[in-house]
Amino acid sequence: MKKEIILLQQEMIRLQVDYYLVPTSDYHHSEYISDYFKCRQYLSGFTGSAGTLLVTTEKAYLWTDGRYFIQAEQELSGSGIVLMKSGMDGVPKIADFLKAHMKQGETLGFDGKLYTAKEMEKLQRHLQDCQVIFRHDLDLVHPIWKDCDPLSCEPAYLLPEQYAGISISEKITGLRQFLKDHHADCQLLYSLTDIAWLFNLRGNDVANTPVALAYAYLSMTQAILFVQSGVLDSTSIQKLRQYHVDIQPYESFYAFIDSLSDTTMLIDKHDMNDASYQLLSNRLSCVEASGWISTEKIVKSEQELLNTKNCHLRDGIYMTKFMYWLKKTIKERNLSELEAANVIDQLRLSDDLALDLSFPTISAYGKNAAIVHYSVTPESNATIYPKGMLLVDSGGQYLDGTTDITRTFILGPVSKEEIKCFTMVCRSMLHLANARFLTGCRGSNLDCLARQPLWEAGYDYRHGTGHGVGHLLSVHEGPNNFRFRTTADNLDAVLLPGMITTDEPGLYTEGKFGIRTENELLCKKWKRNEYGQFLEFEYLTYVPIDLDGIDPALMSQQERTWLNDYHHQVYKKIAPHLTDEERLWLKEYTKEI
Amino acid sequence: MKKEIILLQQEMIRLQVDYYLVPTSDYHHSEYISDYFKCRQYLSGFTGSAGTLLVTTEKAYLWTDGRYFIQAEQELSGSGIVLMKSGMDGVPKIADFLKAHMKQGETLGFDGKLYTAKEMEKLQRHLQDCQVIFRHDLDLVHPIWKDCDPLSCEPAYLLPEQYAGISISEKITGLRQFLKDHHADCQLLYSLTDIAWLFNLRGNDVANTPVALAYAYLSMTQAILFVQSGVLDSTSIQKLRQYHVDIQPYESFYAFIDSLSDTTMLIDKHDMNDASYQLLSNRLSCVEASGWISTEKIVKSEQELLNTKNCHLRDGIYMTKFMYWLKKTIKERNLSELEAANVIDQLRLSDDLALDLSFPTISAYGKNAAIVHYSVTPESNATIYPKGMLLVDSGGQYLDGTTDITRTFILGPVSKEEIKCFTMVCRSMLHLANARFLTGCRGSNLDCLARQPLWEAGYDYRHGTGHGVGHLLSVHEGPNNFRFRTTADNLDAVLLPGMITTDEPGLYTEGKFGIRTENELLCKKWKRNEYGQFLEFEYLTYVPIDLDGIDPALMSQQERTWLNDYHHQVYKKIAPHLTDEERLWLKEYTKEI
Repeated sequence: MKKEIILLQQEMIRLQVDYYLVPTSDYHHSEYISDYFKCRQYLSGFTGSAGTLLVTTEKAYLWTDGRYFIQAEQELSGSGIVLMKSGMDGVPKIADFLKAHMKQGETLGFDGKLYTAKEMEKLQRHLQDCQVIFRHDLDLVHPIWKDCDPLSCEPAYLLPEQYAGISISEKITGLRQFLKDHHADCQLLYSLTDIAWLFNLRGNDVANTPVALAYAYLSMTQAILFVQSGVLDSTSIQKLRQYHVDIQPYESFYAFIDSLSDTTMLIDKHDMNDASYQLLSNRLSCVEASGWISTEKIVKSEQELLNTKNCHLRDGIYMTKFMYWLKKTIKERNLSELEAANVIDQLRLSDDLALDLSFPTISAYGKNAAIVHYSVTPESNATIYPKGMLLVDSGGQYLDGTTDITRTFILGPVSKEEIKCFTMVCRSMLHLANARFLTGCRGSNLDCLARQPLWEAGYDYRHGTGHGVGHLLSVHEGPNNFRFRTTADNLDAVLLPGMITTDEPGLYTEGKFGIRTENELLCKKWKRNEYGQFLEFEYLTYVPIDLDGIDPALMSQQERTWLNDYHHQVYKKIAPHLTDEERLWLKEYTKEI
Repeated sequence: MKKEIILLQQEMIRLQVDYYLVPTSDYHHSEYISDYFKCRQYLSGFTGSAGTLLVTTEKAYLWTDGRYFIQAEQELSGSGIVLMKSGMDGVPKIADFLKAHMKQGETLGFDGKLYTAKEMEKLQRHLQDCQVIFRHDLDLVHPIWKDCDPLSCEPAYLLPEQYAGISISEKITGLRQFLKDHHADCQLLYSLTDIAWLFNLRGNDVANTPVALAYAYLSMTQAILFVQSGVLDSTSIQKLRQYHVDIQPYESFYAFIDSLSDTTMLIDKHDMNDASYQLLSNRLSCVEASGWISTEKIVKSEQELLNTKNCHLRDGIYMTKFMYWLKKTIKERNLSELEAANVIDQLRLSDDLALDLSFPTISAYGKNAAIVHYSVTPESNATIYPKGMLLVDSGGQYLDGTTDITRTFILGPVSKEEIKCFTMVCRSMLHLANARFLTGCRGSNLDCLARQPLWEAGYDYRHGTGHGVGHLLSVHEGPNNFRFRTTADNLDAVLLPGMITTDEPGLYTEGKFGIRTENELLCKKWKRNEYGQFLEFEYLTYVPIDLDGIDPALMSQQERTWLNDYHHQVYKKIAPHLTDEERLWLKEYTKEI
């Protein structure tokens, strides 16, 4: 067994904990987490962005999803940790596993700050009959993790007016109205992106997500932002004070909530962490409701949409230039995954408004592309030859927005199977992007439009078709998305004009190749008639889909028209920003088929 | 104001009830209800199968859904009742309406036997802040409804072995295991179709649904069937006793549950009526869970599938003969909606195994077909001319199964618009019927496959694409269906092999025409590979889709192939059972396009 696990097991035995959970999470249920919070990775060695480790006094199990099966198998090899492939036949969910294995009187431990109140409520309800003991307050990892990085403490700032869209006071007024509507006096905020949105605050404490570590408290008369000392400059502090926002130390948050009394609190169990809920729920009068911010921020403002179109245009130019460079250079010499990633990363980061990448660039050649969330490292760095395909999934954080795009590039000879799959994935992306639908539709109602071209041929991809995209926030933003395995607990949002969602079907053959094609889609109004308000999508992403991978004979006339129309727009938007040589090339790669 | 409403309002004033609810329901939340329960129809005059009447001391409002807007407008005309079109912009839901209008201290009355516990729980939660008084025990309608029919009390019987599929004891054992799994001692059953399924019992107390009025109680040691005295013959009684089923009077049920104590009851709030819940919930220990029967009975047994295929074949022969007769006769003379309905009804009822129709036949000519659930009466009976279209939606209850089919027939000259719409509806039906999908899909994930051909042209139909079909039970059976406006509260079932769902898109132009094409689809396994178990549909319905309404130029090659394949099967299955003349005609109406 891996030595870090053995250390943990010794602590568990000392404290009489029989089962210990280590999720991939921080105190704010962020998707990307800063190094301080990478306990699961530290213990298991598995570097994927999703997974939960369960350690017993004798064994250890890691649950992760289909994106990471291949990667987890490799990284867990020799660790003694059992890989549990979530969603596969015969693999129990963690809750079911605990229910089946835990005996009456045994203790389940975890750090309650790393779970939302909802998650723990569900687990407790599920294990109700088992009569096991829950220990909500056990951080057993940081005490043994000697070389753990300290909490990130990067400078934070307020977004300039032209990028913020809506003012802080307008947003605070909206949230106060929501509290009033729910007969509540106050609310605590945990989500870093919600807090960033509310206060037009940005920072740099989480990789690829421009947010600052923070908590917040809003009542009818008070607004408190809890941030680490020294992260805000005096201008930002002054501005926040203008908006009557108090600033208090991040570390004082739990003492603050412990001091709250005689108030009715609006509680969103999907946002509040379990540790806080344990502190508050028995002491305060609580009103439960879903968060107002999480539904407000996904409908982008006019200003945000204007901005995001600008940044997507520049992002499209960088990607097109990258594609030109890649397809030209590979004819001259071999490349490597890292070199390719560096080229596109540098193009993006050279932008005047660039802050960061929106996630670590996936540059995956050949069989590596079958690892859905493959991340190139100096060790894995494969040589790229003038044959097969390179999958590049990447994006940027710009002051005017966030981008996410995937293209798969044909580098030389490819098999008939590869062409068939490449064409199928393109058809899949087009079918969803060209959907028209009535208001009331969720992404889960439309997901099968993307999957149908694959399903009818007996193929599938083991990931959602798409996710919401934040505006200068997390590149993955819920609750709008395209998936089909929904339940009453995780139903996705009804699609509304102003929402941005990715459309990224793929096909992966383990040990051979991987293909994914991703455009961002903006939901907007189409026609209104006696049936109601119809909606449709507008592309935000304009970069050629490599025609070298397309067999027009495998497409219907309708599908060819969709692709031609898209490429026509790509040329019109991107060509003016290219060199003569690049423009000639783009003409060819956006030609009618 | 209609005099029945005035009578009710006088009662309300006498009893100090400010708002009174009259749903379309019986004590068993049946969809079709027997005459005794048609209180809403008695009060309002609206004869549709769905709707809720809300009466205040001064006003009256009727909510109904898109299927009935036109019909309700006609039937409510002059009644003084305000029509509330559910789902339309600006029309509040009943709960929101009550929340907006009811004042603190006002009283809302209803008969709790007519609501499920879940429905009332939701309404009470919704009105929590209004501080209104709920009166759960007020049946104010039967006391004023002088000429109301008594409760139906028709003979009931046990299904012969060859039709039952699974034995009573096997089913009871299954339900007891479910109770055990949930640590419960007993359960009460309210749904007439659930009770019919569990005891292989059939009757004739509800129009078009071969069930008997009954309640049931099952514990680890007892099984009690509460039916009206005298409805069971001695053979059935004897058989039930063999299975250790006690028989008690229907009327004694509430006294029985009032006597229950010291037991842990499994409660399905979607099944138990509110009146019972009010009686029991504070007295007994309760475990909440969804009903086992309602999910078991929708996956048909091998025997049921074998039987239903037989009855669908015969039903297809009758419909095909009807189509032949209709299209031939209309060339010779005018017809009427009633005459057409009588012809198909008589064909079905002449079947050796026929028990009843599965719902009142819809025979709707021309603009009448735009009224989605139009029901022909001697007053409305339109003359059918050799032009335009006739929509016939009908089905049978046979000892070996239940059928539901809609065809729209071209009777002579039709407009270009009608041909376009007819072809579009056919494409819509075909797209869903030919879907292939992974296990885990719900009908709500697939619904848009049917709607896409319409939506992309800016059309829609204001009803679900399809509903589950019971086996010699209700023709509408949940929770599998095809819809898209799902919420966490009404999520449809994950589709499984053995489920039967209708596929019935349509198009309706008020004042002009209506088109609907409906086949029943059986869900079954397709291929299994590394992605999981794929599923597909098999048609149960084999009747030509009128090629006179089809413009092949408006269909893709794929769509034409789907239609040709279907018609090829229709010919193969139906032709051997026709006269020479009919067979020649069928050849023409199933020809390749």
